[in-house]
Amino acid sequence: MTAPYDALIAHTRETVALMQADEMLGWDQETMMPPRGAAMRAEQAAALATAIHARATDPRVGDWLERIDAAALPGPAQRNVALVRRSYRRATRLPQGLGAALARATAAGVAAWAAARKAQDAALLAPALTAIVALKRDEAQALAEPGQAPYDALLDDYEPGMSAATLLPMLEALRAPLSGLRAAIAARPAPPRLTGHYPAAAQLALARQVAQVFGYALDAGRIDLAAHPFCAGQGGDVRITTRVDEADPLNCLLSTIHETGHAVYNQTMPEDTLYEPIGTHASMGVHESQSRMMENQIARSRTFAEFLQPLLARHFPDAAPADPQALHAAMNRVETGFIRTEADEVHYNLHVILRTRLESALIDGSLAVADLEEAWNSAFHADFGVAVPTPAQGVLQDIHWPKGLFGYFPTYALGNIYAAELFAALRADLPDLDARLARGEMSGVLDWLAARIHRPANTLPPAELIARAVGHAPTAAPLVAYLREKFGALYGLDAAQ
Amino acid sequence: MTAPYDALIAHTRETVALMQADEMLGWDQETMMPPRGAAMRAEQAAALATAIHARATDPRVGDWLERIDAAALPGPAQRNVALVRRSYRRATRLPQGLGAALARATAAGVAAWAAARKAQDAALLAPALTAIVALKRDEAQALAEPGQAPYDALLDDYEPGMSAATLLPMLEALRAPLSGLRAAIAARPAPPRLTGHYPAAAQLALARQVAQVFGYALDAGRIDLAAHPFCAGQGGDVRITTRVDEADPLNCLLSTIHETGHAVYNQTMPEDTLYEPIGTHASMGVHESQSRMMENQIARSRTFAEFLQPLLARHFPDAAPADPQALHAAMNRVETGFIRTEADEVHYNLHVILRTRLESALIDGSLAVADLEEAWNSAFHADFGVAVPTPAQGVLQDIHWPKGLFGYFPTYALGNIYAAELFAALRADLPDLDARLARGEMSGVLDWLAARIHRPANTLPPAELIARAVGHAPTAAPLVAYLREKFGALYGLDAAQ
Repeated sequence: MTAPYDALIAHTRETVALMQADEMLGWDQETMMPPRGAAMRAEQAAALATAIHARATDPRVGDWLERIDAAALPGPAQRNVALVRRSYRRATRLPQGLGAALARATAAGVAAWAAARKAQDAALLAPALTAIVALKRDEAQALAEPGQAPYDALLDDYEPGMSAATLLPMLEALRAPLSGLRAAIAARPAPPRLTGHYPAAAQLALARQVAQVFGYALDAGRIDLAAHPFCAGQGGDVRITTRVDEADPLNCLLSTIHETGHAVYNQTMPEDTLYEPIGTHASMGVHESQSRMMENQIARSRTFAEFLQPLLARHFPDAAPADPQALHAAMNRVETGFIRTEADEVHYNLHVILRTRLESALIDGSLAVADLEEAWNSAFHADFGVAVPTPAQGVLQDIHWPKGLFGYFPTYALGNIYAAELFAALRADLPDLDARLARGEMSGVLDWLAARIHRPANTLPPAELIARAVGHAPTAAPLVAYLREKFGALYGLDAAQ
Repeated sequence: MTAPYDALIAHTRETVALMQADEMLGWDQETMMPPRGAAMRAEQAAALATAIHARATDPRVGDWLERIDAAALPGPAQRNVALVRRSYRRATRLPQGLGAALARATAAGVAAWAAARKAQDAALLAPALTAIVALKRDEAQALAEPGQAPYDALLDDYEPGMSAATLLPMLEALRAPLSGLRAAIAARPAPPRLTGHYPAAAQLALARQVAQVFGYALDAGRIDLAAHPFCAGQGGDVRITTRVDEADPLNCLLSTIHETGHAVYNQTMPEDTLYEPIGTHASMGVHESQSRMMENQIARSRTFAEFLQPLLARHFPDAAPADPQALHAAMNRVETGFIRTEADEVHYNLHVILRTRLESALIDGSLAVADLEEAWNSAFHADFGVAVPTPAQGVLQDIHWPKGLFGYFPTYALGNIYAAELFAALRADLPDLDARLARGEMSGVLDWLAARIHRPANTLPPAELIARAVGHAPTAAPLVAYLREKFGALYGLDAAQ
């Protein structure tokens, strides 16, 4: 009776191993590969993608799925079957040729995007983006379950089970409070930045030390430099990258802590299911919640500055912040800007909300690409209080849409919402949390996350995983409360803001 | 008419890309992978091996091969077809289950080898090795063409077209002269070693500089540390590893030059056939000839010491050899030892010849595993003039046989034979070769090798490739002449030795 299940899992294990191999080669490409290796690496990645796709759509998978008596299986095995069924259905539903058409359209999209940025003319991207949106709508229609809206079918790739009906009101509940907080802070003087020279070697030594404080096991990982920080791998081999700006030690430090949040999640998943669908991360939003909580709720907290400032003083004797409060203030400087990737905690979600509203309208057809720039600029002015000066600082700033990524942006905001929910629940469970953080003592936090998020991995749908961890369906309220409290104290705002 | 050929090549290209991916992950495993990543990497490698094997034995390959009208194709395409036909025949001839049985037997063999070394008792390896030899004979019989001897079928994996009938007399012609040279040198005082402290950073800087002198393009490669130096990759991404002993700068330097010989071959193969059977190296022996010529005929020559000694003086101001002659003498110290991997040029081939004679006898059935140690010890005494003191310094020193590698050892000696042949031909074509080497000017050498070896890649069988490059079928004579000349001069021997 379990024979088709065993065959299915054996097949899946090997597919997952190929995906891991692909991920490691992706890491290599960003960190180690010599410049002239790019063309060959592209061939290798394409061959792996073909092999993985062939396995994922292998008709034997459909056959095993039909023959499995799921009701007779234990719970985790049932969830494995449901997850394989879902990905098999999605992989086999895509019409012949759509993948190739999307690959061509997004290659053209990325080229048009670069040209449009250079010319500061969003109209140059419009034809390519119109084609991409049309193909993504085709994809969404092919993937959609009966009754599922096209945008929801795309969301499902990154945040399984999420829908615009749940997502948009949650983001909307965030928008007005954040916009108000932003305006109140803008009226106050900004605290000083850190200034001085922070040698790269000392920054990397500090990064290694702090990553270990946050639970990163270096015998199952490594830290290298890359243009864009990222995390790759699972289980016994989870690698992170960071970057160094010798004028700003917080860049390397906070990037490293962010990626450590991802890495510790991947290192803590149960070893015995690392190759099964239940053994991976629950969703992109849940993954991002782990990095954001480490970076924002913990590393940028007033209490953690008590632990961190002496470390900086040791590593940078000539240029450390004078005291924990100065460090905390510098780590939480708020400044209105136009670029999402440079945004502070107050502005960041406003960026994401704007993009989510626009991309869901593009996919559901209520917004045309021709009207996108105007819609962007008007929404930006409403939420940020300033006018977008150039397209590169506005609608042309991100590569996501030209690359065909729709439904990805909201996972950043979901990560922040989940992080605030989880941190509030964690605080309720660990009354001495602040005292622990002031000592840099992370074991209680890590045990709590391991039990509720890391070790359950993908055994539950993400919404249920978070709801079980915090005791209710997640809302934006804890995030709003957290931001008001921290920035209210720092900027001397009254509680109503 | 060419449609099945195009399909075959497209299929092969993707298989080769997967093999390259596997090779890069192998590099990562030895250089970058964190310790706890080993188990997952083994799964990834196994999944890739399965995918590669499935592609190599895909029945469509047999179908395309049947439908191709080879006579209508141009020469290089005909050679591609012949090479795919050969590997398809070999891959599909292996009986079901033999691969798995060999994997199990060699895993047990490696464990038994380690235990036998620890206990200094070769008898502990005998049962596992007996099983391995039996399976390798099964494999050889399955692979053998009509009339081909089993050992030749194994040789063919590493040196296509080579046979014991050609190989053993060639090695035998080497044995007596080498043994005589060894005895004559042993009667003379050995020149002094280099002594002093050679900082690792300076050794690596020198290695990078010298690798580039030997033609290594660092924008298509990189140099890292690993326990055992090796070379991995092709075309735009060819990586080498080296090692550092701070008491001995020649270890890192000569390892690097050796691997650079491999790397430059791989970097110089034509870009447009990198994924085709004709676009890879001709054989293991030919590959080894490139590394050996760079390391021995060039780097260890008296004239190159003129270029190298000032470099050492610059990188190691406190511990450089006094003059080029002192460097040359230290680089060519001859000492009787028991371990192949530590052997000098005079002893090295004697080690290989001994193993080749024994392993061919094991496979053709004229030697039983039970009699192997005695056969080793008696042959060693005859060739080296000393008795083997312990099994770990004798029959248990190499991991090759416990790993199931039979037919591999002779490629080391073939590499030396080919290197001497090629270098003699190169010298005849470049009358000012010594003056060039004394200046560290390698372009003429590299152009010559590119035209005759690197760019032809695998368009010709290895024996024909070498014969065309040097004008006759290769023999051991140039190697004997080269060794007698160099060591005769260095040790003051008369010409008859």
